[in-house]
Amino acid sequence: MSDLKIGIIGVGGIAQGRHIPAFQGFEDCVISAVSDVNKDRAQEAAEKFNIKMIFENYQDMFQHVDAVVICTPNKFHAEITIAALEAGVHVLCEKPMALTAEECEAMLEASKRTNKVLAIAYHYRFMKNSQAAKKMMRDVGTPLVTRVRALRRRKVPGWGVFTNKSLQGGGSLIDYGCHLLDLAIWLMGSPKYVEVNGSTYNALSKQPNSVNQWGSFDHETFNVDDHVTAYIKFENGASLLLETSWAANILDDEEHVSISGVDGGLSVFPLEFYAAKDDMLINSQAAWISGEDDPGLSQARNFLDACLGKAELVVKPEEALQVSQIIDEIYQSAESK
Amino acid sequence: MSDLKIGIIGVGGIAQGRHIPAFQGFEDCVISAVSDVNKDRAQEAAEKFNIKMIFENYQDMFQHVDAVVICTPNKFHAEITIAALEAGVHVLCEKPMALTAEECEAMLEASKRTNKVLAIAYHYRFMKNSQAAKKMMRDVGTPLVTRVRALRRRKVPGWGVFTNKSLQGGGSLIDYGCHLLDLAIWLMGSPKYVEVNGSTYNALSKQPNSVNQWGSFDHETFNVDDHVTAYIKFENGASLLLETSWAANILDDEEHVSISGVDGGLSVFPLEFYAAKDDMLINSQAAWISGEDDPGLSQARNFLDACLGKAELVVKPEEALQVSQIIDEIYQSAESK
Amino acid sequence: MSDLKIGIIGVGGIAQGRHIPAFQGFEDCVISAVSDVNKDRAQEAAEKFNIKMIFENYQDMFQHVDAVVICTPNKFHAEITIAALEAGVHVLCEKPMALTAEECEAMLEASKRTNKVLAIAYHYRFMKNSQAAKKMMRDVGTPLVTRVRALRRRKVPGWGVFTNKSLQGGGSLIDYGCHLLDLAIWLMGSPKYVEVNGSTYNALSKQPNSVNQWGSFDHETFNVDDHVTAYIKFENGASLLLETSWAANILDDEEHVSISGVDGGLSVFPLEFYAAKDDMLINSQAAWISGEDDPGLSQARNFLDACLGKAELVVKPEEALQVSQIIDEIYQSAESK
Amino acid sequence: MSDLKIGIIGVGGIAQGRHIPAFQGFEDCVISAVSDVNKDRAQEAAEKFNIKMIFENYQDMFQHVDAVVICTPNKFHAEITIAALEAGVHVLCEKPMALTAEECEAMLEASKRTNKVLAIAYHYRFMKNSQAAKKMMRDVGTPLVTRVRALRRRKVPGWGVFTNKSLQGGGSLIDYGCHLLDLAIWLMGSPKYVEVNGSTYNALSKQPNSVNQWGSFDHETFNVDDHVTAYIKFENGASLLLETSWAANILDDEEHVSISGVDGGLSVFPLEFYAAKDDMLINSQAAWISGEDDPGLSQARNFLDACLGKAELVVKPEEALQVSQIIDEIYQSAESK
Amino acid sequence: MSDLKIGIIGVGGIAQGRHIPAFQGFEDCVISAVSDVNKDRAQEAAEKFNIKMIFENYQDMFQHVDAVVICTPNKFHAEITIAALEAGVHVLCEKPMALTAEECEAMLEASKRTNKVLAIAYHYRFMKNSQAAKKMMRDVGTPLVTRVRALRRRKVPGWGVFTNKSLQGGGSLIDYGCHLLDLAIWLMGSPKYVEVNGSTYNALSKQPNSVNQWGSFDHETFNVDDHVTAYIKFENGASLLLETSWAANILDDEEHVSISGVDGGLSVFPLEFYAAKDDMLINSQAAWISGEDDPGLSQARNFLDACLGKAELVVKPEEALQVSQIIDEIYQSAESK
Amino acid sequence: MSDLKIGIIGVGGIAQGRHIPAFQGFEDCVISAVSDVNKDRAQEAAEKFNIKMIFENYQDMFQHVDAVVICTPNKFHAEITIAALEAGVHVLCEKPMALTAEECEAMLEASKRTNKVLAIAYHYRFMKNSQAAKKMMRDVGTPLVTRVRALRRRKVPGWGVFTNKSLQGGGSLIDYGCHLLDLAIWLMGSPKYVEVNGSTYNALSKQPNSVNQWGSFDHETFNVDDHVTAYIKFENGASLLLETSWAANILDDEEHVSISGVDGGLSVFPLEFYAAKDDMLINSQAAWISGEDDPGLSQARNFLDACLGKAELVVKPEEALQVSQIIDEIYQSAESK
Repeated sequence: MSDLKIGIIGVGGIAQGRHIPAFQGFEDCVISAVSDVNKDRAQEAAEKFNIKMIFENYQDMFQHVDAVVICTPNKFHAEITIAALEAGVHVLCEKPMALTAEECEAMLEASKRTNKVLAIAYHYRFMKNSQAAKKMMRDVGTPLVTRVRALRRRKVPGWGVFTNKSLQGGGSLIDYGCHLLDLAIWLMGSPKYVEVNGSTYNALSKQPNSVNQWGSFDHETFNVDDHVTAYIKFENGASLLLETSWAANILDDEEHVSISGVDGGLSVFPLEFYAAKDDMLINSQAAWISGEDDPGLSQARNFLDACLGKAELVVKPEEALQVSQIIDEIYQSAESK
Repeated sequence: MSDLKIGIIGVGGIAQGRHIPAFQGFEDCVISAVSDVNKDRAQEAAEKFNIKMIFENYQDMFQHVDAVVICTPNKFHAEITIAALEAGVHVLCEKPMALTAEECEAMLEASKRTNKVLAIAYHYRFMKNSQAAKKMMRDVGTPLVTRVRALRRRKVPGWGVFTNKSLQGGGSLIDYGCHLLDLAIWLMGSPKYVEVNGSTYNALSKQPNSVNQWGSFDHETFNVDDHVTAYIKFENGASLLLETSWAANILDDEEHVSISGVDGGLSVFPLEFYAAKDDMLINSQAAWISGEDDPGLSQARNFLDACLGKAELVVKPEEALQVSQIIDEIYQSAESK
Repeated sequence: MSDLKIGIIGVGGIAQGRHIPAFQGFEDCVISAVSDVNKDRAQEAAEKFNIKMIFENYQDMFQHVDAVVICTPNKFHAEITIAALEAGVHVLCEKPMALTAEECEAMLEASKRTNKVLAIAYHYRFMKNSQAAKKMMRDVGTPLVTRVRALRRRKVPGWGVFTNKSLQGGGSLIDYGCHLLDLAIWLMGSPKYVEVNGSTYNALSKQPNSVNQWGSFDHETFNVDDHVTAYIKFENGASLLLETSWAANILDDEEHVSISGVDGGLSVFPLEFYAAKDDMLINSQAAWISGEDDPGLSQARNFLDACLGKAELVVKPEEALQVSQIIDEIYQSAESK
Repeated sequence: MSDLKIGIIGVGGIAQGRHIPAFQGFEDCVISAVSDVNKDRAQEAAEKFNIKMIFENYQDMFQHVDAVVICTPNKFHAEITIAALEAGVHVLCEKPMALTAEECEAMLEASKRTNKVLAIAYHYRFMKNSQAAKKMMRDVGTPLVTRVRALRRRKVPGWGVFTNKSLQGGGSLIDYGCHLLDLAIWLMGSPKYVEVNGSTYNALSKQPNSVNQWGSFDHETFNVDDHVTAYIKFENGASLLLETSWAANILDDEEHVSISGVDGGLSVFPLEFYAAKDDMLINSQAAWISGEDDPGLSQARNFLDACLGKAELVVKPEEALQVSQIIDEIYQSAESK
Repeated sequence: MSDLKIGIIGVGGIAQGRHIPAFQGFEDCVISAVSDVNKDRAQEAAEKFNIKMIFENYQDMFQHVDAVVICTPNKFHAEITIAALEAGVHVLCEKPMALTAEECEAMLEASKRTNKVLAIAYHYRFMKNSQAAKKMMRDVGTPLVTRVRALRRRKVPGWGVFTNKSLQGGGSLIDYGCHLLDLAIWLMGSPKYVEVNGSTYNALSKQPNSVNQWGSFDHETFNVDDHVTAYIKFENGASLLLETSWAANILDDEEHVSISGVDGGLSVFPLEFYAAKDDMLINSQAAWISGEDDPGLSQARNFLDACLGKAELVVKPEEALQVSQIIDEIYQSAESK
Repeated sequence: MSDLKIGIIGVGGIAQGRHIPAFQGFEDCVISAVSDVNKDRAQEAAEKFNIKMIFENYQDMFQHVDAVVICTPNKFHAEITIAALEAGVHVLCEKPMALTAEECEAMLEASKRTNKVLAIAYHYRFMKNSQAAKKMMRDVGTPLVTRVRALRRRKVPGWGVFTNKSLQGGGSLIDYGCHLLDLAIWLMGSPKYVEVNGSTYNALSKQPNSVNQWGSFDHETFNVDDHVTAYIKFENGASLLLETSWAANILDDEEHVSISGVDGGLSVFPLEFYAAKDDMLINSQAAWISGEDDPGLSQARNFLDACLGKAELVVKPEEALQVSQIIDEIYQSAESK
């Protein structure tokens, strides 16, 4: 059986830093093509990674590949994904799934219609801690309260298109917080949400000359959220407290997911477990977890195996859709205030 | 001018441990009477603290005192407060203000009508850290996001009437979380809330034989919340993430209030301040704060001064009313799920 | 039913500091008599603890009590225990059981013959950590290697008869190390020993003017061990490495029992558990253990309950006998070098 | 005078990682030949390190070199060493000296007979801490108790021939624990042992699917020890408690040698000293030790200097013989249980 | 022989808190009289400590006692000391010796003339750390550089006469820094000073409303130093850097004496030693020091023994004189700026 | 406008490690020439850094460059600087400015006369912490006490000409301590000094075989200071305590500058601020400071900008002159003892 041929659409930082090296680490696939609206960048990437075919128009690539990885600005996720699936090509699409829940639904529908694989790159699920936490959930029991904090102190990304709402659909929530939100809901067992409430802010980034650790940006054109809070209720009664930020006046960055359940509680970073046993309260930590801690690699392997019919997807499109639905609801709740 | 005469109604732990010693520490007042439905307990307390008059019926006490401190179960706060005010007696009532917002409104109305002082014992505001944090809020600027965590790991109070809903109106939120919630809103400048969402739990306490650090209780009759989450939006756009618990599977107890504003952020326990200045991110801590750290004493002093017309109340009844309104809304939101 | 009447034989530090307060904390027994070769000391103790009867000769006490607690120098343990049992009196005897294994066997035989309770005061077993560790042994599985370290840095007890071999039978091992050795073997499930090897030292204490943290003693008459090492094999294949000392050139005091088994490992001080699960290595600690941490009290309660036929002894005389047998073997092995 | 010509026999990890780079760092010797039963491996190593001669049969090498370094499986140490010495070639043989004490004696005898240098690569002695500890022993005085712990938590080496008894003669003790045992006895002044007792285990490694941090191995064919305890008495009265393991349920890896003597005590990792002086107990640590911390280099230098008659061997074959005798006795003691 | 009769002159805090309890702890002396300009205070102290005689005029006391302890404001030290000595009474005088070096010289002369004991209460020398450091100086060798830091962050003593220049002669230096300065020079071996340079400040205490941790004081009448720096050269070439303060903008209080000598260095709080040995740099700490850490008691004992002719004074008046000379020089240097 | 042409005089470690890489990092200048008395070293450096012109005699270089960086031994600083300035070439001269204050004055005069830029390479001022501390001085207010400690434990530089007095003018003070002294005075606002007192030592380095962490040196020819203390008074009343050393018996290396002023205090390493506000004592730290922490780069940029008339010098020659005057006074004070 010949190697799976993979095409990359959009060759910016995430493609060159995570996806291309990951797929080039396997023997049963080959990255045979790249495509980018910026032809020079496509050319450079192809040379750097020794990739044979270059396309300016991604449509032209589909007949030459079995699968594509979509790394464009969020705005183009839906359009390209649907086109690829309809061309009979499997898709690994960067997160978030798309700009809106409506677009996500169309992508999911296309995947079902064409019977092609559609994976969304929520790679936090593939971290060693996350995989181990998923197993530990057996001992947490029914989840009651979940906390998600994805906070950076004054680290607005000053490069790329991160602060452009029309291309990205939002800021800190859609770019960063979505990862931890997705991870938390997956650990909870992917219950359905029933109610969402949220608020968004960008007062810090709108100030002229605000101190920023990750480069500089134009505070006048900045039009996305840099700080978001939300509260989500699920049909099983669980509730989730969410806070995410690129720029907050806080002590330090924080990346936190914890879940308190009926039988125990856990925190993912670091991986800890809290429970009661034999008239004791017991705390446990992972001293060592087997395997490589390279989530990009594990994500690529899972996608390949799904394309090859050898494994189920870890990140199913239905789950990524729900994350986008929740993000939509947060933004709507914030605007209605 | 003669000393202010003070009566104590309900001589349980909070009266004997906090209020009586506090008022007996001043020279311009005297505790002249106690009242309790349990006559023996009243007798014992009177002897222990050398108090002259004892009443079984609190009504009989009013003509002998200038002010009363109400330390009964929550259910009786409203009834006694209104009776006292109408008898021309100032009132310091334990928190929460009453079982429901409706009762609180009646209390507030009585206070205005009679022109007597009505204070609610949210003593967390009188801690040194709280008082200093209130001053630091000048440098926090407009508050954006507030976090309140009042969490205990498996510490359901196994004594008193804490787990009795009809007497107390609720559990961990109305007994414990309300303190930190009140403190947080006061620090924020007492903005009006516009929306409240919440969830309540008691799965851990309903389990037979659950491990508990603070004595034992009957899991079958337990009918209050032991864990609550909520999300509150304010008219100035700020949002507040609340979690409180008597019994959660977590790493450790936590008592946390923090506020991130436009100009800076602060945390109260310990007292820290986070801001940007001169191209730096700066963290500051209080190394020493002047004054005694005896919130019960400071609270009593403020109440006395208010009765004597020498100071404004720190905890105004309008503010305590809003805390009760929010608690009401949380319980209602939780039930409607 | 009337209260159990208890007599105390030997009213030194251990009697006044641990046993008398413990038994006086219960309602179903009364300390009705004391006996001591030093009549003045007996008199003082009786007054201090409000005990009615005083005997110079312990034999005279037996007809007035139901049980005795023996707190004399080790040399008299066997003689008094056997006399008491034969007089129909239950016995709680301080550790070690006696000077030699031979004496211990006679004590055990007397207990069986008279059908009276004989308990030995290895109170380390009643510490909260020890009791919880005993439950954790379920998850340790078959024990392989046990380590016991009971070490003090230059703390030879400079009072009492601790350094007198003819009264005590030995030094650091028989006085201190025996506690941790007993605890370890009990946790292991009380397997039978098959081989013992040991060495004893007292070079530090024999030096003139050696620095000592616990008072001064006569280095010339000092004739017991101040440092002991031993190696014990059990019939289940487990081995135990033992080191105990009153006076060693080490970094710091150490009180350590740990057991590595087939399924997991544990340490008692602090209480920790080490295992593998789900491709992880996991460490766990006790964050809180229920109950009072007063081993003297728990030990007294267990003895009373055994006398009343309501509970099994936690420290059975057969187990204490084996500890004395091992101590005997260590001393013999050391001498044969 | 021409450079000393050195041959390497067995070019696995230890040769390529330690010995070859070490000898190539000196100007008065040259590695002129390699030999390996695996011809390809010999070829690769020769190219990588620019070594001129390659031999399949080590016998053929002897006439071309002045000295050899033997890095084969333990089984071949004796045979090759004796052949080399008899060919007039100096020998630096990897540890352990050989599979059995009998073989070691033959090697020692050959060395004496031929008057050629025989060094054993117990390189832990050449660590900076070890060298400094050796000097500190002056202040420790007569050693009383020595502790050796060489423990790894679930780190069975899953490569090479480590788990093959016929080639290696044993597991964790003969491969790893021997280093620390040798170091400890050398620090003690190389006293003669008089009694040895020990136990060996491999229950963890015989379990299917046991978690292992250092690769995977076949639990069915695993036939060496993964955990060993021992107790050794010396003719000067000192005793040594030994524990070594590749796979134990413990908190963490531990590499510990400490000695308590009459005048002071020391620990090697980290280097600390404990003593009494001027009515004080004093702890001391090495804040800085001069020299390079490259034990392989120092070991090679010492061997070269011994070959050149310029220095005494640090690791004398008589000392390595005693280590092997003790290992033999431990294994025999374990089997006789 | 009868007990030594001791009189106390000035019964403020230092007398009641340190000297009276210390002398009452011995069996060979009795405090038989007190004297104070404040008769009520004398009366109270006499009752509290069960002292028989009370004198308003200290002169009247001399014929009734063998020795006096002088605890008056500094201004009266010289006058009372000389009167006592001339009356044949031994003197233990609080530090500093007197207001000026001139007065000190007169005191010393009186002591020599009368052949009576004159001790100055520099009790820091009697701390366990100080006594042990004095022994360690053997290994420090010739001192080169000494650092003295006696710093308090905003702790001006708001009670007593501390801020009154005419009574005390100065502020932070003469009250607090003098202790550490005396200790340092004694450790150095009491070399003679050859040059002194200094600066004094009180800008912080002269500010209205400055934050102060130790009570309040009148910033307008405050006329002593609250911060002093100095540099002292000794005839052996050593130099000493001194900083002392009651009120400085610093991180934290600091009490530091360290000495770097030719052979080693030491720090007193905590007690540490730094040296080079065997090609190592070694740090040592005192883990335990024998004796009681009650400098007031040890100081009293030494004074008694000196009065009884059984011991030499630890703090000789010649040494205290030099401390006062240096203080004088610092104040003069500061004024000449 | 063409690039500024820069010549390097003296191509030792400081030139190759700091200055050449710094200037080669900018686009508006070019290093076009090197000069060194060691022709081979000049040749090597030119090749390594791709510099076109090489001169044996620095005089010959002047007509080919716009500016020079002087990295010779201190002895030649004055001569070369003056020659360069008179040749119309800007000068960045390594610290210290020159061997004596007299030389420094001549350099300053030449700079004024020629109107060419003269900068001295006190690069500690360009560290991020230093730049931020300079801004923080606004809140320190008038400085009172400054402490400078630049201490190394047994780290005499064993290479170069550091221990040669005739070439360098001194040891630890002129080589190392001068940096921190310059930094401190600049932070204080460059007040004029009015009095200097000091002591110098080299007893440790004069000992044979003293342990040294930074290579070996000849203790017999060693003729500079290895340890210096000093005390400096300024015309604004501030005082500065200085200690610097290459070789002292101390706990650890220390690099410390702190200033206590009327309104606040600060420490530079780490950057902290201490003050009082709102009845609190507050400590603040820099959590993050913007910019690159490459003082060599910032220093080069500032020099270039000064040459181009675009910025003021950060290190003005008048300020460097005062540092040299103080160093002179310290050495003179030390000799006069």
